[in-house]
Amino acid sequence: MKVNLLALLLLLFSFAQAEDGYRLWLRYDQLKNASLRTGYESRLATISLPGNSPTLQVARKELEMALSGLLGKMVRIPETRNPQASLQIEKSSARVSAQELTSLGEEGFLIRSTGGKSPLLITANSEVGLLYGVFHFLRLLQTEQSIEKLNIKEVPRLALRMLNHWDNLDRTVERGYAGFSIWNWHTLPTYMDQRYIDYARANASIGINAVSITNVNANATILTQPYLQKVKALADLFRAYGIKVYLTARFSAPVEIGGLKTADPLEPAVQQWWKDKAREIYAIIPDFGGFLVKANSEGQPGPQDYKRTHADGANMLADAVAPFKGKVIWRAFVYSAEVPDDRHKQAYSEFLPLDGKFRSNVLVQVKNGAIDFMPREPFHPLFGALPKTPVMMEFQITQEYLGQGTHLVYLAPLFKECLESDTYQKGKGTTVASTLNGMAGVSNIGTDINWTGHLFGQANWYALGRLAWNHELSAEDIAKEWIRMSFSTDPSLVSDLTQMMLASREILVNYMNPIGLHHIMATGHHYGPGPWVADLNRPEWNPTYYHRADSIGIGFNRTATGSDALSQYHPDAAKKWSDPATCPDIDLLWFHHLPWNFTMRSGRTLWNELCYRYNLGVDSVSWMQTVWNRQQSKLDAQRFEQVKMLLNIQHQEAKWWRDACLLYFQSFSRLPIPAPYEQPAKSLDYYKSLQFPYAPGH
Amino acid sequence: MKVNLLALLLLLFSFAQAEDGYRLWLRYDQLKNASLRTGYESRLATISLPGNSPTLQVARKELEMALSGLLGKMVRIPETRNPQASLQIEKSSARVSAQELTSLGEEGFLIRSTGGKSPLLITANSEVGLLYGVFHFLRLLQTEQSIEKLNIKEVPRLALRMLNHWDNLDRTVERGYAGFSIWNWHTLPTYMDQRYIDYARANASIGINAVSITNVNANATILTQPYLQKVKALADLFRAYGIKVYLTARFSAPVEIGGLKTADPLEPAVQQWWKDKAREIYAIIPDFGGFLVKANSEGQPGPQDYKRTHADGANMLADAVAPFKGKVIWRAFVYSAEVPDDRHKQAYSEFLPLDGKFRSNVLVQVKNGAIDFMPREPFHPLFGALPKTPVMMEFQITQEYLGQGTHLVYLAPLFKECLESDTYQKGKGTTVASTLNGMAGVSNIGTDINWTGHLFGQANWYALGRLAWNHELSAEDIAKEWIRMSFSTDPSLVSDLTQMMLASREILVNYMNPIGLHHIMATGHHYGPGPWVADLNRPEWNPTYYHRADSIGIGFNRTATGSDALSQYHPDAAKKWSDPATCPDIDLLWFHHLPWNFTMRSGRTLWNELCYRYNLGVDSVSWMQTVWNRQQSKLDAQRFEQVKMLLNIQHQEAKWWRDACLLYFQSFSRLPIPAPYEQPAKSLDYYKSLQFPYAPGH
Repeated sequence: MKVNLLALLLLLFSFAQAEDGYRLWLRYDQLKNASLRTGYESRLATISLPGNSPTLQVARKELEMALSGLLGKMVRIPETRNPQASLQIEKSSARVSAQELTSLGEEGFLIRSTGGKSPLLITANSEVGLLYGVFHFLRLLQTEQSIEKLNIKEVPRLALRMLNHWDNLDRTVERGYAGFSIWNWHTLPTYMDQRYIDYARANASIGINAVSITNVNANATILTQPYLQKVKALADLFRAYGIKVYLTARFSAPVEIGGLKTADPLEPAVQQWWKDKAREIYAIIPDFGGFLVKANSEGQPGPQDYKRTHADGANMLADAVAPFKGKVIWRAFVYSAEVPDDRHKQAYSEFLPLDGKFRSNVLVQVKNGAIDFMPREPFHPLFGALPKTPVMMEFQITQEYLGQGTHLVYLAPLFKECLESDTYQKGKGTTVASTLNGMAGVSNIGTDINWTGHLFGQANWYALGRLAWNHELSAEDIAKEWIRMSFSTDPSLVSDLTQMMLASREILVNYMNPIGLHHIMATGHHYGPGPWVADLNRPEWNPTYYHRADSIGIGFNRTATGSDALSQYHPDAAKKWSDPATCPDIDLLWFHHLPWNFTMRSGRTLWNELCYRYNLGVDSVSWMQTVWNRQQSKLDAQRFEQVKMLLNIQHQEAKWWRDACLLYFQSFSRLPIPAPYEQPAKSLDYYKSLQFPYAPGH
Repeated sequence: MKVNLLALLLLLFSFAQAEDGYRLWLRYDQLKNASLRTGYESRLATISLPGNSPTLQVARKELEMALSGLLGKMVRIPETRNPQASLQIEKSSARVSAQELTSLGEEGFLIRSTGGKSPLLITANSEVGLLYGVFHFLRLLQTEQSIEKLNIKEVPRLALRMLNHWDNLDRTVERGYAGFSIWNWHTLPTYMDQRYIDYARANASIGINAVSITNVNANATILTQPYLQKVKALADLFRAYGIKVYLTARFSAPVEIGGLKTADPLEPAVQQWWKDKAREIYAIIPDFGGFLVKANSEGQPGPQDYKRTHADGANMLADAVAPFKGKVIWRAFVYSAEVPDDRHKQAYSEFLPLDGKFRSNVLVQVKNGAIDFMPREPFHPLFGALPKTPVMMEFQITQEYLGQGTHLVYLAPLFKECLESDTYQKGKGTTVASTLNGMAGVSNIGTDINWTGHLFGQANWYALGRLAWNHELSAEDIAKEWIRMSFSTDPSLVSDLTQMMLASREILVNYMNPIGLHHIMATGHHYGPGPWVADLNRPEWNPTYYHRADSIGIGFNRTATGSDALSQYHPDAAKKWSDPATCPDIDLLWFHHLPWNFTMRSGRTLWNELCYRYNLGVDSVSWMQTVWNRQQSKLDAQRFEQVKMLLNIQHQEAKWWRDACLLYFQSFSRLPIPAPYEQPAKSLDYYKSLQFPYAPGH
């Protein structure tokens, strides 16, 4: 053939294969470093991966696809054992001591190469452990690591590593900013979208082993036969990837689809209905994970409708799934319009008395903070406070309050900040992470071709999985892995993008909710600023409830002289927050109402610090644009342009946030926005007038 | 490099580049026939395409991308004229006589090669004509035609070739079965999705030159400033591709967004409001196409709310856009619950008296049949009946009543059947096509990666464009073009798939609505059979209204002894339909109520013919499965599996249609389903009990 190979390759990847982001971080393009490639090639000349169970087939196919792509030559792996192979992938390898094997547990794996002629080994106690090992090994190749001397032992820190989809049966996604639900219920179970496979691959590659596929604002229809058959099709597929399916249980289902008159958890007929339903589900899906439940929160039905406790409700469901080793994950995100107390305090007040009253197969799932997935919030006081109850972390990957689908915000620093917070509950060093039995992330996945709308949203899905596996990984290391796999291993690009990602969350905090401000987004869709909103039915739905700006100052007093939410924390944890003099700037207005002329650590007044932070946020987005633009030559055109356009939106919206918030707070402070800051482009009335009736995710 | 090229290519296309259908028919993979490729390569050694206007840049980029891919070598085309080039692409070429150029009109083009050393020529009078010529030329290469001796002159038959999107601002799509709206209003105008570009390319490649991007059940919000800025971004992009943007105008907009008390078209303030609105729009989008209006139909507001006529309403809007050369497209799809007459007759009754009363920039858009996009219906009696009014054809590409997103149904035979019907209005041979001034297709495009949900839905988008350009093309030729571009030029594959596609519409008619039955779908979502539905508010919303089955027989008597809808046709057209003895079987129950024991041409009784047709339909889907499966080796895995799964659904649903309809009609006929036909799997009550609350598109 008279074809120039290099030109052809370039073409294929610039035209035929547009970089549309669909492949996520599982990109297996040929490695550009020829000597590295040759090294890998000789080290991986023959591969032994005996067996043909679904999970092993999946592992083999991934390896074949990845190596064929990365090495630029067709790789095929037989199903039979080859003791001479240079890469040995085998369960419970005899080359490893029994003790070492035991230490890997159910899902861990070992990758070992002693160099020279001895074979490279991937071993584990289970097939899914092998699959995890294969994905880890492929990550080494994708990120161009040496594989000459390896002794990698990986064991997940948490047993339950989960995605929560808030997907409705009509395919809308509550708080979804990446199109619509990837679950096409109408064509399931007969039509299996390629997405389902690639979704499972992506999750397995980062160790996610559980997914709840329906909205926590639940619909009982999912528990009917036609839908259970659809769920079964997904569960059957996901099983090979080590992923269990959970469903959200609508507490009133016995009434809505069961024909009962009550859903009272102490009513035997109700208990029997759930037991029958569980038996029905497990007959269809033998390894069904269990139920995720939002009850008596924001209008959802629950046991309190019958004057029963959350424990009564959870235990009834737990008893129904217990014979099948199922779990119940009960959300602690509850607050009531009838309770006049600070919303911050309500979950703790309700759940603390229930510690020890839950069945052993119940997990309580707690949001990272006590309000609601804010750009920054202190850790939730329930962490470490329920010693007798397994607790799961609930992070929000979807950026409901963090710029939604159009802002580049890398969330690992937020996750890490919470996980590393010291609860002091068992003495100093009782980090939030140390109190957990599982971790869930509310998914940011949708039908957009690139899955997450914003390309950098992929990094947040990735980071959640990686941290659920090992919370000690640094945000920086995770960012670098993701950049190397998703874009390129070019050092300058990796360095620039890492910096940008690591800074991005603080940048958003600055232009959106600086100095501990929170929940001042427009209500309902939460798109854009709405600090002025004060007319909603429930007080705690109004931004004015949270910022409490007045002629004197701004902030929510949660000390002993205020709502005393601080008292729910261990005294050693609360201490630094209790006094404005010791409270970190970043949490100041979360815990204190302070006068406009309060002197900050910077020496600025509070008002001037607000002006400074908002402007710093805007300027920092300009910096992000500069960073991105200077890497253009190392990026493919489509992804470069996409992110560039989104950074433009982010810059526009950062200004909008700054101008709207400063104008509004100025109506209380009566102080000027000091030079040299840009004055707001429009009037406060203009910003108040903006309406977004079709904002997504609501 | 030590890489086997062929193996690498295979890999790239099986792994890195999954065949996800996104590329539509614009697939430019390297031609497999090496000698053909070499021939093209030498014939296209140098290319002259001078100029750098947006349209010429688009044409150049398409050529570069296509030739680079098809020929497997990097092709770059300079912006300067090269009189020695072997392919000359130039406006109003001096190599062509002035007379010939004139005959090309505004949008036509000429492709000429006289063989030997003389250059290949593509010329036209406009840049978009050149773009059309480029796409036509590329189609020749994609389908492996000789380019040695060409003398192709193409001039579109219709000036207005349009897609109508029924897309809502919340991104749901009325009657959409391919996900959600591709218009991401939230991120427009700053974020321009790659889809918008590829959508424009696809449309230009088949000659579509107008798109209405919002639902005919309209929302006035689209006419407000923020949304007009979003529309502008699309219009600016589409302009280079020769595509004008239209919007749907909600008739009550002057009240809803204009603050007026009335939308009466004879009210000067209302007229002024529309004039101002038109001026506002044209200031933003100078080549705005105009308004598409659904008024006084199915609850939409309209001039009749003020006791004005459709002409009053249309003319008011026409006057508003006339100074800017805008058009108003007024839909004739009207029927009223207050009118006791056969719904079939209402549009004709309302519009016939208005002929000659519309402004010259109004087009009346008429659905292909008088009921509503049925699997088969006789042509609409309005075609040819409005000699003084420009008329547009409205076909439905989205398969609301033809299996929605999961049935393989090629619609070109349906389009052709209507276009070639003889209205006799200006004597024998007055085909429907000859009466048209434009053609619109209701889009089947959505956010699914492959655009249309069912891969073969792409063929229907393609066919609509090709027939709007030239209605004399045969359904077979269009199918073959599409197959060759979308799959392969392998003769056996082309032959098999062509057969399957050409048969598919009649197959669906058989298992769904045989012998002239119509509108017996479940109501609302129109998914699946619902011939028993009789309880809806408006009589003509009930399937029982249409089939009129009783103990005596079945069918709608539209002859002089019945509703006399036949009288709306020219007598020569009506003649064959008026007598059951001459009425074709396919239209029999559309026009006649006939006894169960009526003797058909086949010799069977009507009841037995019904049983025969339904079973034939089901068996024919099995045949389609066989045809598809035997081509597996020539198809990529992903597309093969996708279509295979959908054919499974189609087979299941064909049986469902057959069993539910025969059981229901049997409750009137009291006759057995004769051997050897399969007896229904379930009871009639079972089929009646099925509910689909989340069926798409509703």
